[in-house]
Amino acid sequence: MNSSREILEKVKEGSMSVEEAELFFKKEPFMELGFAKLDSHRGIRSGFPEVVFCENKPDEYLVSIYKKLFEEEGMVFGTRASKEQYELVKKELPEIEYDEVSRILKAGTGVEPKIGRVAVCCAGTADIPVVEEAAQTAEFFGTEIDRVYDVGISGIHRLLSNTDRLLKANCVIAVAGMEGALPGVVAGLIENPVIAVPTSVGYGAGFKGMSALLTMINTCANGIAVVNIDNGFGAGYLATQINRLAERTRT
Amino acid sequence: MNSSREILEKVKEGSMSVEEAELFFKKEPFMELGFAKLDSHRGIRSGFPEVVFCENKPDEYLVSIYKKLFEEEGMVFGTRASKEQYELVKKELPEIEYDEVSRILKAGTGVEPKIGRVAVCCAGTADIPVVEEAAQTAEFFGTEIDRVYDVGISGIHRLLSNTDRLLKANCVIAVAGMEGALPGVVAGLIENPVIAVPTSVGYGAGFKGMSALLTMINTCANGIAVVNIDNGFGAGYLATQINRLAERTRT
Amino acid sequence: MNSSREILEKVKEGSMSVEEAELFFKKEPFMELGFAKLDSHRGIRSGFPEVVFCENKPDEYLVSIYKKLFEEEGMVFGTRASKEQYELVKKELPEIEYDEVSRILKAGTGVEPKIGRVAVCCAGTADIPVVEEAAQTAEFFGTEIDRVYDVGISGIHRLLSNTDRLLKANCVIAVAGMEGALPGVVAGLIENPVIAVPTSVGYGAGFKGMSALLTMINTCANGIAVVNIDNGFGAGYLATQINRLAERTRT
Amino acid sequence: MNSSREILEKVKEGSMSVEEAELFFKKEPFMELGFAKLDSHRGIRSGFPEVVFCENKPDEYLVSIYKKLFEEEGMVFGTRASKEQYELVKKELPEIEYDEVSRILKAGTGVEPKIGRVAVCCAGTADIPVVEEAAQTAEFFGTEIDRVYDVGISGIHRLLSNTDRLLKANCVIAVAGMEGALPGVVAGLIENPVIAVPTSVGYGAGFKGMSALLTMINTCANGIAVVNIDNGFGAGYLATQINRLAERTRT
Amino acid sequence: MNSSREILEKVKEGSMSVEEAELFFKKEPFMELGFAKLDSHRGIRSGFPEVVFCENKPDEYLVSIYKKLFEEEGMVFGTRASKEQYELVKKELPEIEYDEVSRILKAGTGVEPKIGRVAVCCAGTADIPVVEEAAQTAEFFGTEIDRVYDVGISGIHRLLSNTDRLLKANCVIAVAGMEGALPGVVAGLIENPVIAVPTSVGYGAGFKGMSALLTMINTCANGIAVVNIDNGFGAGYLATQINRLAERTRT
Amino acid sequence: MNSSREILEKVKEGSMSVEEAELFFKKEPFMELGFAKLDSHRGIRSGFPEVVFCENKPDEYLVSIYKKLFEEEGMVFGTRASKEQYELVKKELPEIEYDEVSRILKAGTGVEPKIGRVAVCCAGTADIPVVEEAAQTAEFFGTEIDRVYDVGISGIHRLLSNTDRLLKANCVIAVAGMEGALPGVVAGLIENPVIAVPTSVGYGAGFKGMSALLTMINTCANGIAVVNIDNGFGAGYLATQINRLAERTRT
Amino acid sequence: MNSSREILEKVKEGSMSVEEAELFFKKEPFMELGFAKLDSHRGIRSGFPEVVFCENKPDEYLVSIYKKLFEEEGMVFGTRASKEQYELVKKELPEIEYDEVSRILKAGTGVEPKIGRVAVCCAGTADIPVVEEAAQTAEFFGTEIDRVYDVGISGIHRLLSNTDRLLKANCVIAVAGMEGALPGVVAGLIENPVIAVPTSVGYGAGFKGMSALLTMINTCANGIAVVNIDNGFGAGYLATQINRLAERTRT
Amino acid sequence: MNSSREILEKVKEGSMSVEEAELFFKKEPFMELGFAKLDSHRGIRSGFPEVVFCENKPDEYLVSIYKKLFEEEGMVFGTRASKEQYELVKKELPEIEYDEVSRILKAGTGVEPKIGRVAVCCAGTADIPVVEEAAQTAEFFGTEIDRVYDVGISGIHRLLSNTDRLLKANCVIAVAGMEGALPGVVAGLIENPVIAVPTSVGYGAGFKGMSALLTMINTCANGIAVVNIDNGFGAGYLATQINRLAERTRT
Repeated sequence: MNSSREILEKVKEGSMSVEEAELFFKKEPFMELGFAKLDSHRGIRSGFPEVVFCENKPDEYLVSIYKKLFEEEGMVFGTRASKEQYELVKKELPEIEYDEVSRILKAGTGVEPKIGRVAVCCAGTADIPVVEEAAQTAEFFGTEIDRVYDVGISGIHRLLSNTDRLLKANCVIAVAGMEGALPGVVAGLIENPVIAVPTSVGYGAGFKGMSALLTMINTCANGIAVVNIDNGFGAGYLATQINRLAERTRT
Repeated sequence: MNSSREILEKVKEGSMSVEEAELFFKKEPFMELGFAKLDSHRGIRSGFPEVVFCENKPDEYLVSIYKKLFEEEGMVFGTRASKEQYELVKKELPEIEYDEVSRILKAGTGVEPKIGRVAVCCAGTADIPVVEEAAQTAEFFGTEIDRVYDVGISGIHRLLSNTDRLLKANCVIAVAGMEGALPGVVAGLIENPVIAVPTSVGYGAGFKGMSALLTMINTCANGIAVVNIDNGFGAGYLATQINRLAERTRT
Repeated sequence: MNSSREILEKVKEGSMSVEEAELFFKKEPFMELGFAKLDSHRGIRSGFPEVVFCENKPDEYLVSIYKKLFEEEGMVFGTRASKEQYELVKKELPEIEYDEVSRILKAGTGVEPKIGRVAVCCAGTADIPVVEEAAQTAEFFGTEIDRVYDVGISGIHRLLSNTDRLLKANCVIAVAGMEGALPGVVAGLIENPVIAVPTSVGYGAGFKGMSALLTMINTCANGIAVVNIDNGFGAGYLATQINRLAERTRT
Repeated sequence: MNSSREILEKVKEGSMSVEEAELFFKKEPFMELGFAKLDSHRGIRSGFPEVVFCENKPDEYLVSIYKKLFEEEGMVFGTRASKEQYELVKKELPEIEYDEVSRILKAGTGVEPKIGRVAVCCAGTADIPVVEEAAQTAEFFGTEIDRVYDVGISGIHRLLSNTDRLLKANCVIAVAGMEGALPGVVAGLIENPVIAVPTSVGYGAGFKGMSALLTMINTCANGIAVVNIDNGFGAGYLATQINRLAERTRT
Repeated sequence: MNSSREILEKVKEGSMSVEEAELFFKKEPFMELGFAKLDSHRGIRSGFPEVVFCENKPDEYLVSIYKKLFEEEGMVFGTRASKEQYELVKKELPEIEYDEVSRILKAGTGVEPKIGRVAVCCAGTADIPVVEEAAQTAEFFGTEIDRVYDVGISGIHRLLSNTDRLLKANCVIAVAGMEGALPGVVAGLIENPVIAVPTSVGYGAGFKGMSALLTMINTCANGIAVVNIDNGFGAGYLATQINRLAERTRT
Repeated sequence: MNSSREILEKVKEGSMSVEEAELFFKKEPFMELGFAKLDSHRGIRSGFPEVVFCENKPDEYLVSIYKKLFEEEGMVFGTRASKEQYELVKKELPEIEYDEVSRILKAGTGVEPKIGRVAVCCAGTADIPVVEEAAQTAEFFGTEIDRVYDVGISGIHRLLSNTDRLLKANCVIAVAGMEGALPGVVAGLIENPVIAVPTSVGYGAGFKGMSALLTMINTCANGIAVVNIDNGFGAGYLATQINRLAERTRT
Repeated sequence: MNSSREILEKVKEGSMSVEEAELFFKKEPFMELGFAKLDSHRGIRSGFPEVVFCENKPDEYLVSIYKKLFEEEGMVFGTRASKEQYELVKKELPEIEYDEVSRILKAGTGVEPKIGRVAVCCAGTADIPVVEEAAQTAEFFGTEIDRVYDVGISGIHRLLSNTDRLLKANCVIAVAGMEGALPGVVAGLIENPVIAVPTSVGYGAGFKGMSALLTMINTCANGIAVVNIDNGFGAGYLATQINRLAERTRT
Repeated sequence: MNSSREILEKVKEGSMSVEEAELFFKKEPFMELGFAKLDSHRGIRSGFPEVVFCENKPDEYLVSIYKKLFEEEGMVFGTRASKEQYELVKKELPEIEYDEVSRILKAGTGVEPKIGRVAVCCAGTADIPVVEEAAQTAEFFGTEIDRVYDVGISGIHRLLSNTDRLLKANCVIAVAGMEGALPGVVAGLIENPVIAVPTSVGYGAGFKGMSALLTMINTCANGIAVVNIDNGFGAGYLATQINRLAERTRT
């Protein structure tokens, strides 16, 4: 899992042979499956392989994409999978594993070693599916995670008594539904970026997360990056990018 | 400023003469001005006289309403007044006073004595016009006010170091624009009701207060009463009702 | 069910022994369950124990939260429960009771004695699930309730003929779907606060309660506190706070 | 001001000569002005001549339309005119009259005699410009009007004490801003249709009349016809149609 | 089915005995069922008995309301009923009839004779459930109906070739989903009012009828009364009111 | 499948006999089925026969419309059909064919020969149902199609490496959900029109395609025609019109 | 004004010398102005030069862009210009011309000859600024225009009596505010595409054109391409593309 | 400009004397100005001093805040300032500087040295005020900036030819109005995070930036952090945090 720049730098430094490097670059830029074009250069370009968004994918497409990516990359990672999809893929790819809470469907242990530190926190227990999607995404791509759950603002002492854990992280993912105020409070306490994830949890006028999204977009606190409603994956991805930057010269 | 029930109870107890009580009840239920019907029974019914919403009132209507109400009640109170309206009314009613921050236009000192305690707090300095409308409304109608300003969540220690003042109040008015998270945090700290007022202060996606309103409506904290965007008056009125209930048998 | 201030005052007055008081204060501020942090100081801080929002809670979490809270407080109260959840909890907690209309799942009789008076009214029979959530919440936390149902504005004589019952209440909860006009009319008739609850009942352009919410937020009547769509619990909680304030020196 | 059907019926009955009738039918169906096509058959088709929506009309277009229509019909009626437009048109058409409250710009006394009865009521004094647009439109097209102003729901006795006037009308136009509850209450009191007009008057979350519009569309009361925000003209037009139907065999 | 005014006039004229009239007035103004207050004076006040909105009514409430109303009025009419509700009510009230298209559940033939004429038209076949709710409502309450279906604007000759039928009606109900343009086109062709009903039929950005509703509210054509999305009942009711006015002195 | 103009021109040129032409014009302008008015002149007027929108059509209506249209036109084409509808129609019309991906239900091969070229591209595999509805619609009505799938902007090299195929088309249909940026990028690369189709694919704040629709409506690129969310049919129809214009003098 | 393909084809056919062709290709792909990158290859790529969106452009940027583009292309075309901007540009570029109605600011006569035919129609006179932006854009880029104004649906005979002019066009631009029904009616009458332009004209609930936009997106008529609110330019551009395709082998 | 952790680490390492460190910690946590509470610990907590949001600040407040912060920190930085505000502050604080494009009002050169690299790009010239707010914010707080302007997707070669500059940055700020597609395209090309800023630039249905915001929130590309509409400051702040993390062990 290396970007093209890193590969070239390693070649230059001599830490990678020309032959090894060539393997990366002789890949076709995408694999044509007819109904899909799998982006095989994505790992080279971004440092992350292509990830599968499972929801609503027709069954036969899903299975062939999982098989193809696993063959090519030796690992495969997807989100929003149903239990039925897990069972279908398992028939063709016995290495596959499924987590019912986060709905992540993956094969392989992901990027090793796990480095740096990202704290993930959520406001209530109903936010756990989303926060776990974030946490497990970041872990799969090589990030050390610290979980701080159920620290919503209606009992703010639960959050304040964990401030030290938030302060130690390279960045914090803060997940909240209903009014979505948690990320703003966290951002007021720490120095590093906060990634805010609205969830669709709540009563009627929450509009399935829109209210929480607006709260996070409008917060008066500084240093907040907002992603889409229930998009734990996006938060985990962004946190991994920031964590890698923070750790790149330390490892 | 007494409700009909209180009057009748006083008559029964003998603390008010039949003649005095009669003055209340012989009032016409409303004063017909042609273009308007001033609700002269409102004081009897609700314990508050009719209040004037000045914005967009044609000049001649405004002046005659102010004069009529002052003649009848010995005091008059209006909101959302412009400086031009103040000058117009002043020509006919020299007792009138205007506050440029809250845009309140009133005559008379209002209900005396000031009783109980309501804390009013706001997130930022841009919320001051609204929070002052709330504070001065409640004061006019007989409430003791404690002001705690600029305590938004981006520096939460400013709020936490004033918790004791919030705890002493019969209720708290919390005013905030942008993401509007302040009322939820306050409600998590205290025992009595919080009246939440969204303001139209903020960047683009705040939708002139709609985002803050949704935050307050959706908050996971309990004991929050929401009023309309920038409606300081409504908050001051509601706080006065609650404060009167809390104090009614103490005085 | 006492707040910290009341406890300290009782100690000062001698009506509570130092030993009894100590029991409150030696509690951990929250109970760490791993996936959740139960706020055990909430009762001390707010006068209400932590309440469970059952909807979408994973089964095992729900059961362990109910058990834990019942052990700690001797009573437990939750909203938005399904019949299936009731049956699950019952296996572990035989004291549990379920009301199918309000969807409240609780154990224990709640705070005693029931004091003061709160009137709850609704516009139509379709609003009954929400108004019952409000009424039973307030009752559980120690409030005397008077029910005035099916008094919507399309036949306003039904409301007007019950005005005396509304006038006797410390506050009124008014629940309405469709256009949501009921709270404004009630507020025009009485002296004390009205808590307005929009419901998601109605035809297409009601937007699942948003229209009723906007009506209540925008009403020209004074003394209205709005809570979220279908949030009977929030209304019952707020009504209890106001009722306690009104009664605190009477009892 | 007759429809084609009425003309033909009069010819059949002998109450109109063939020559007179011919005048109606030999009209070109529209007058081509290049930039506009004035609908000269509208009177024949609908019983109303073409009405001018003045707002944003370029000056030269406006003036020539007014002149052309006055020449053809002997009367002309327009809405949403500014004082500047009035002065412009007056130079070319001295018969023109302007009402600053309703912003109606017209020449001629309109249809005579004034028949039947339509009641127009409004919630507050800020709604007067819209309710006057409605009232004067209906009057111009031959309707007898009864004005009942400032009868909003926050003091419902003002409305109830005028119920008899509402009951006597063929239909009622009810105009309200803010929460817009007035039409629903009126419809619950009477037998004939209510035409509901939302206005853009109010605080922030009224969304310039959208909240009032939704209230009226969603009302649980029956017999309500809704028109656009601030569209007094549309209400006056519809009321005239209904009033004509109700009176057609009486006169 | 007479209004109070009509009853009194009949008494005055001698066409109704004092004893018959007394039956109307000795009714209680509403029937208290505990969970509901049936408005028994509605027929006297409005000329229509109370109508049942069946959707989401708990089974036992529904059955007892149907029985009670049928006992009192000799007829009962409800909308939005499911087949299951029909079968439930049938057990207790064998006279009940159900129409699967319009989802109307009623007993009795309604008001006789059927008078005047209302045309009901719809844009496409998917609008038929709503247009039938409108048509059958108006018929039940005594209106003669003319059905003109599937005349949407994409083939406008189908509408134009039926113009004569629209011209003969006292008013026209025009039902349309998707863009909802039909009522505006109809209003441009005729003299009497058009009642516009948006339906929730259509592709994604129709927002379940909101787009059609906005079209109808904003139409440039005059003489349009808008009701809620899919509210065929409301349209049938309003049409009946207008038709009665148009026919009142003819019969 | 000819328009009236083309028919008349062919008669004039002598390439069609008067007898053949007469067949087109002696058709009734619509077929009255009672519940529907099938537009039999549509082919003459627009060059396309009436197309059936199957969703929510009652079963008996659907079957009789399919049969009637097939009898009249020798072909029939419908969209948004379910498998159940297919099986129903098949009983009466054995020629019927159903495609599960696009949900198109048709009989006959459509217009021949297939002419010109339209490229259809989509951003991701989840957009395939919509893009296939577009492609198969255009094919049925006589258009040659080139499919370029899974070329979303997150790996823009997949699109750029197919630019030549886009450049050869008379127009391009670009289908995308989520943020919907694909059509704008395509329009920046080519000379001919782009028809943009938003899909309802995506995370929470996509609002079931509304976000993608807004993106396409607001794009800074020129030459973009937007159709409704998920409306592949509309795009295929419009592309066919443009393709016919481009090819009309070539064939 | 030629695309790259046309140039290469001309070179192949011998109708353009290699030297002339070279001039096109030796252009830099964009002109770097520091604050801007003018897209000099756009003409080659799309057949249209870069167009200037004047609104809100800082003065100095605007002037230098106009000068640069005129030097390079011998013509320059911009939209949404104010009179002040015209006067500023005129000082530096005396060839500039300004049209106050359409707000177009241009130099040069544009592409010659004017070919084919596009009809532009609008619903009311208030739509003229937008329809003129469309018409003049298409004319500048080489399209013959036929103007059919003030043909809104409230008097549909004005439109129907011009059907023949619409039938002769390669495509029709239909511009409408308020409810925006015109394009759907036009599309039902003709064979070629309709480009629908919503305008921001209308009463309150039109939401500055959003209602008209939704109408056009949701129309049941086929063959409609929608562009942004008030975006006459986009419509004129798209119409030019379609017109060029229709005429390409005729000229 | 040091965080508390860094200070303590320096004390531990001996690179800072106890006396110097003490200066930081003996600060009051906030400065009470009556109307405001300046957060003097913010620099210690977050590594950034308090920043002033100038818009709508009353004049006297603004001036005293600027003076106070400059006295305390030796530098002061504010956004959304008007020229009038600049002139007012200048009278009291001659060191103040104002940039008319970005509307930044500041004193002092900010944090030195400028480290790392952040690329800032925008889609069009109308986005320059926002992108400059972002760039100058990041520069003031110590970031090296690379500007890549006018690279919107309608001419994507302008962006692609600058890919190398984007690849060299620790993160990229991408600013766009209208459809807001730029950040998604950028994120598909690079390895590090993209901070997306929607602007309020565009035609009608852009809803003052809401459309661009939704595009960015919904993008299918990974690694995107969204901030509020026109919130260049927020983007510059977040970019600085990420840049500091990336560079912390390099310097």
